[in-house]
Amino acid sequence: MPANSFGHILTLTTFGESHGPAIGCVLDGFPPGMAITPEEIRAELMRRATGQSRWTSQRKEAEDVQILSGVFEGKTTGSPIALLIYNTDAKSKDYSKIANQFRPGHADYTYHHKYGIRDYRGGGRSSARETAMRVAAGALAKKWLREKFGVEITGWLGQIGEEVCDERFDPAVIDTNPFFCPDASRIEALEDYMKRLWKSGDSVGALVKARATGVPVGLGAPVYAKLDGDLAAAMMSINATKGVEIGAGFRSVAQKGTEHRDEITPEGFESNHAGGVLGGISTGQPVECAVAFKPTSSLRLPGKTVDIHGGPVEIVTTGRHDPCVGIRAVPIVEAMLALVIMDHVLLHRAQCGDVGEQTPRIPG
Amino acid sequence: MPANSFGHILTLTTFGESHGPAIGCVLDGFPPGMAITPEEIRAELMRRATGQSRWTSQRKEAEDVQILSGVFEGKTTGSPIALLIYNTDAKSKDYSKIANQFRPGHADYTYHHKYGIRDYRGGGRSSARETAMRVAAGALAKKWLREKFGVEITGWLGQIGEEVCDERFDPAVIDTNPFFCPDASRIEALEDYMKRLWKSGDSVGALVKARATGVPVGLGAPVYAKLDGDLAAAMMSINATKGVEIGAGFRSVAQKGTEHRDEITPEGFESNHAGGVLGGISTGQPVECAVAFKPTSSLRLPGKTVDIHGGPVEIVTTGRHDPCVGIRAVPIVEAMLALVIMDHVLLHRAQCGDVGEQTPRIPG
Amino acid sequence: MPANSFGHILTLTTFGESHGPAIGCVLDGFPPGMAITPEEIRAELMRRATGQSRWTSQRKEAEDVQILSGVFEGKTTGSPIALLIYNTDAKSKDYSKIANQFRPGHADYTYHHKYGIRDYRGGGRSSARETAMRVAAGALAKKWLREKFGVEITGWLGQIGEEVCDERFDPAVIDTNPFFCPDASRIEALEDYMKRLWKSGDSVGALVKARATGVPVGLGAPVYAKLDGDLAAAMMSINATKGVEIGAGFRSVAQKGTEHRDEITPEGFESNHAGGVLGGISTGQPVECAVAFKPTSSLRLPGKTVDIHGGPVEIVTTGRHDPCVGIRAVPIVEAMLALVIMDHVLLHRAQCGDVGEQTPRIPG
Amino acid sequence: MPANSFGHILTLTTFGESHGPAIGCVLDGFPPGMAITPEEIRAELMRRATGQSRWTSQRKEAEDVQILSGVFEGKTTGSPIALLIYNTDAKSKDYSKIANQFRPGHADYTYHHKYGIRDYRGGGRSSARETAMRVAAGALAKKWLREKFGVEITGWLGQIGEEVCDERFDPAVIDTNPFFCPDASRIEALEDYMKRLWKSGDSVGALVKARATGVPVGLGAPVYAKLDGDLAAAMMSINATKGVEIGAGFRSVAQKGTEHRDEITPEGFESNHAGGVLGGISTGQPVECAVAFKPTSSLRLPGKTVDIHGGPVEIVTTGRHDPCVGIRAVPIVEAMLALVIMDHVLLHRAQCGDVGEQTPRIPG
Repeated sequence: MPANSFGHILTLTTFGESHGPAIGCVLDGFPPGMAITPEEIRAELMRRATGQSRWTSQRKEAEDVQILSGVFEGKTTGSPIALLIYNTDAKSKDYSKIANQFRPGHADYTYHHKYGIRDYRGGGRSSARETAMRVAAGALAKKWLREKFGVEITGWLGQIGEEVCDERFDPAVIDTNPFFCPDASRIEALEDYMKRLWKSGDSVGALVKARATGVPVGLGAPVYAKLDGDLAAAMMSINATKGVEIGAGFRSVAQKGTEHRDEITPEGFESNHAGGVLGGISTGQPVECAVAFKPTSSLRLPGKTVDIHGGPVEIVTTGRHDPCVGIRAVPIVEAMLALVIMDHVLLHRAQCGDVGEQTPRIPG
Repeated sequence: MPANSFGHILTLTTFGESHGPAIGCVLDGFPPGMAITPEEIRAELMRRATGQSRWTSQRKEAEDVQILSGVFEGKTTGSPIALLIYNTDAKSKDYSKIANQFRPGHADYTYHHKYGIRDYRGGGRSSARETAMRVAAGALAKKWLREKFGVEITGWLGQIGEEVCDERFDPAVIDTNPFFCPDASRIEALEDYMKRLWKSGDSVGALVKARATGVPVGLGAPVYAKLDGDLAAAMMSINATKGVEIGAGFRSVAQKGTEHRDEITPEGFESNHAGGVLGGISTGQPVECAVAFKPTSSLRLPGKTVDIHGGPVEIVTTGRHDPCVGIRAVPIVEAMLALVIMDHVLLHRAQCGDVGEQTPRIPG
Repeated sequence: MPANSFGHILTLTTFGESHGPAIGCVLDGFPPGMAITPEEIRAELMRRATGQSRWTSQRKEAEDVQILSGVFEGKTTGSPIALLIYNTDAKSKDYSKIANQFRPGHADYTYHHKYGIRDYRGGGRSSARETAMRVAAGALAKKWLREKFGVEITGWLGQIGEEVCDERFDPAVIDTNPFFCPDASRIEALEDYMKRLWKSGDSVGALVKARATGVPVGLGAPVYAKLDGDLAAAMMSINATKGVEIGAGFRSVAQKGTEHRDEITPEGFESNHAGGVLGGISTGQPVECAVAFKPTSSLRLPGKTVDIHGGPVEIVTTGRHDPCVGIRAVPIVEAMLALVIMDHVLLHRAQCGDVGEQTPRIPG
Repeated sequence: MPANSFGHILTLTTFGESHGPAIGCVLDGFPPGMAITPEEIRAELMRRATGQSRWTSQRKEAEDVQILSGVFEGKTTGSPIALLIYNTDAKSKDYSKIANQFRPGHADYTYHHKYGIRDYRGGGRSSARETAMRVAAGALAKKWLREKFGVEITGWLGQIGEEVCDERFDPAVIDTNPFFCPDASRIEALEDYMKRLWKSGDSVGALVKARATGVPVGLGAPVYAKLDGDLAAAMMSINATKGVEIGAGFRSVAQKGTEHRDEITPEGFESNHAGGVLGGISTGQPVECAVAFKPTSSLRLPGKTVDIHGGPVEIVTTGRHDPCVGIRAVPIVEAMLALVIMDHVLLHRAQCGDVGEQTPRIPG
């Protein structure tokens, strides 16, 4: 599998640098016959778009996505779907002064040592801009899963810094505020928190959660293509992630077996500590995961680093930067969740035939 | 990539069921010329072996591993290395009564619905017995990394239930006790804890940590073959895992950017919240991860479930079972860490030439 | 994809050396629920087995194949199917004298320069013994294709040296003679030919042909996983192959378009120069291919070569060797044809749903 | 591996339809630090370009290739290299009348039955236009191989119809005539032949040959990633191919072992029937292959076919079409040869370290 590709059957290959001519992707293996328009893709991109509020990066991105192939007369054809966005608002002059310095917490240092050459403008290939193409591709996967199985995918902000955001959970609230926060009563406090953070010049981490409902039982291919294994890989490939949980996650460590095991009755499972996955295969319960994002590394507060010759440098990152990259990761996490589940639908039917063909299921 | 295979260049394919004739693996892509004996592999297997203490499953496994191919006159040849262990102590009669029932927390339910047929004896393919082959293959990877770069890989038990195990950390202690606990002062308490747990009939989760030192800078292939992404996939593919962290992991959520970013001086990095990975590429610092294991699902305390016809059943799991599967996962986590890092050494030199060739590094 | 594996969904991984402890394979991605016995596999192996006549290598191979995993109570489970054959009749003493010499036409020279170490006994990994596992795996694929779609796969010897063998074609004759010759009137001449060849000490090449009937329309995944592209790779991976043709093959060079294009009428195609594949996708007509095998390189007639130090050596290969390796390649070509077609059935239904689901077909 | 991707380490993914907005590719895994300009790529594209002479399709293609990513300040960075060509001269109106008919010899019939939907304009995804991106990517591979090892890749027309073109071989002649013919004395005859063919309305097949010199010994990864196996797959994935040979190819069938085996002396190999590959690994001799192309299926001479409802239709293909698609396949075959060899250099050094590291070679 190429290093810039992801998936077994439904494969996403992305390309492009933050300040190069364009970013794009090729989504291969998509089934034929689904209607899709650039507008539907753009709608998902706008959710992720920087500049949607004052709390996130000020770069204006038209996100004018083009469908270059794989769609004919408005429908997918089974050929690879290429999507492209030109980088129209790339201010590369902002970055020239750090061409020879390694910003702490960034990939500057590692790209330099791996490749001996790097596109330093805006992080180049290591920029979170790459994730726009995941969201674009995810728009197709979401639609297919919804039409085919009624799968619904919902992501939200679970925590930012010490602020827990989802003690009350109303999915209708999530897209009404710039924080993807599902609790209307928390929004004002989050605004205050962000104002203070912005003023301080510092940044903070975030916890993003996501859930997929309506997932058929039986998805996932043991042993090394487990549904949860692939989800972990998908999430950990997003920029700035440091941890992934499925279901009870790290809370499992302190749980007893009698508490964790989800007992089953003829009416269905009595709990979902498993997060919808047992033995790497979906149970039919909601698939649930949580992803930890580290704080933004680009700060206007000075930090110590070295230049490419090893000499000490004090660095200050100017330019446009989110004080919390985790917020806009919500649609990215959703996209990866959709892509992984859809990929496993296809992989399942390769080996086992249509979903649900092997046996009737008990209630999920 | 086949579903039962893992890795880019160094690929591990495993096969076998808990109570079938044998388990085995094929390790392909291994470099030629390394000396290896069955005894070296067996030594690693013994660390994982069930039956090493009263706290783990009582199944006696000789772990009499055979090298079937890929080694000639004691040295690897570059051809695929097949390893095989016959299942000599498989008591399949223990399992016949649960042939038509789904043990809660196990993969019985999902395998049944995916495949319409399952080898119910001891969990069949979903048994943790599969992981023996990871440990066997990991023994080769560990040796190669040590000889080539001086990489040392150390795993330990970080927590079991509420009991934190690594407040003091002495690597020399880890292999002196049945808990892989690095703190000699905690061992008696752990024994008490396990006694009470055993008596109660319940089980508990565990946190396993691991670290690799001496890892060269520059390993990892953005964007979808990141070192940490592959580690996450590797760890989440181990039985009973529910979460994976790299470096500061979920603690990153509450961190500020000024705290998390690892500043750099001419003497090296000042901290390692990154866990040795930036932008998916190794920094040269220790690679550090933590893995959450859920409590054993096989319990002698009765639980509710259904049979394959959907009817209600009360289930009691008899037979030999660890009250904490996480403990013996320590060598498995080590093995996966070794396999991923070695795979990335090979992948790196494919694209970029020998490790360290692109540029001289600053101190790690 | 590991270098010793083949296939997209149905993946075959083989291991083992000619004179090592055993050869084996892992067949992953096989659908659950198909009945299979070791005897059925052995029947295919016996067709390939050396020693079936005086014209092929005299090595006695019990071909006592074991099914180590993936089959439970006589049926496939969807887990990886591991097959193993111990090398009981390996006379490694025969080979010690050529440990430091490169037999012309063999892989000795290239393995030595690639790996710096080689298992010289009987060619080690480069021995045609590896192909026994293809035949074993192919037995499962053949059965599945026959049961599912009525696909029948037939291979035969098309030519040996200058002797054309299939001017008359009676499939019932193929398995009645040691040459897989479909023309009963040619068998005596072939025996004479082989006697003279054996006496001369020389060897000769062969042309093997194969056909699959009943193949559904629509199999093949453009552009780089075309059905014919995968067939070419499959055939060229067999030992001693030097060429592959689909349909009219090299005769296409001299054909006019009006001759080659297979016109279509409401009753079906009027010819099959395409060999059952257009644009990389099956047409529903028979899939037809031909494979060229070079003459056996192991000869008792002396030849010039060098030793590992570059010094000149005259080499004479003693031991057991077919004067025409192509003959027993017939079941191997059949096996690869079956594996590729079955793999493409699975790949097709991943993306496009069940075979024939997209549209009704016209007569093939 | 995605179905529209090719390669192990150096992976080429192509997308785009003949008359869609654009065609493009992503070349992933390319080593960092090689200088490349769009002009260098364009030069290769022009060799393939239709419209280079009156004998090939009249479509004017500016081939204005853009480098969208992976190159910074004129050098490759190790990130995926995306190349794009907009389809500026696509006359889709020419094709509307055949929207519901299956052109014989084309992929219309098979795409329709596989996907249930197809972009019928100019063959859509099955058009040879896709191969432009192979040539573009091949330009980079050729340059890298030349700079790194002095590898030179030369393709030529070996035969067209019954006309043999390479009885005399002068590489300097190849690019001086529109037939890629290496024999200056044959060009006038070829012009006459093509004139008559054009007038007749018929088309003809072709034989394309290619050779790579300077290939290091040791490239190729047994068993299923053999150098020749990958070459066969690469060539058979080109549109209109029906056969592939390595070295002596189908002539091997009638050869004796004493003739075919390439004897070795301290001065090197005495012949090259192997075509530079033994046991799937390069010998250091020239890698040589030949590829059979079928005659163009688009003819203005009427042919029988059916429409999508199965009714009989007489079809006449108007529009711009080569009477011999094989001619312009020469640069495509070269490109695939370059991509496969470079991929195997990278794969080799992954497992075995730098080329030539394992052992010193004897003269090739």
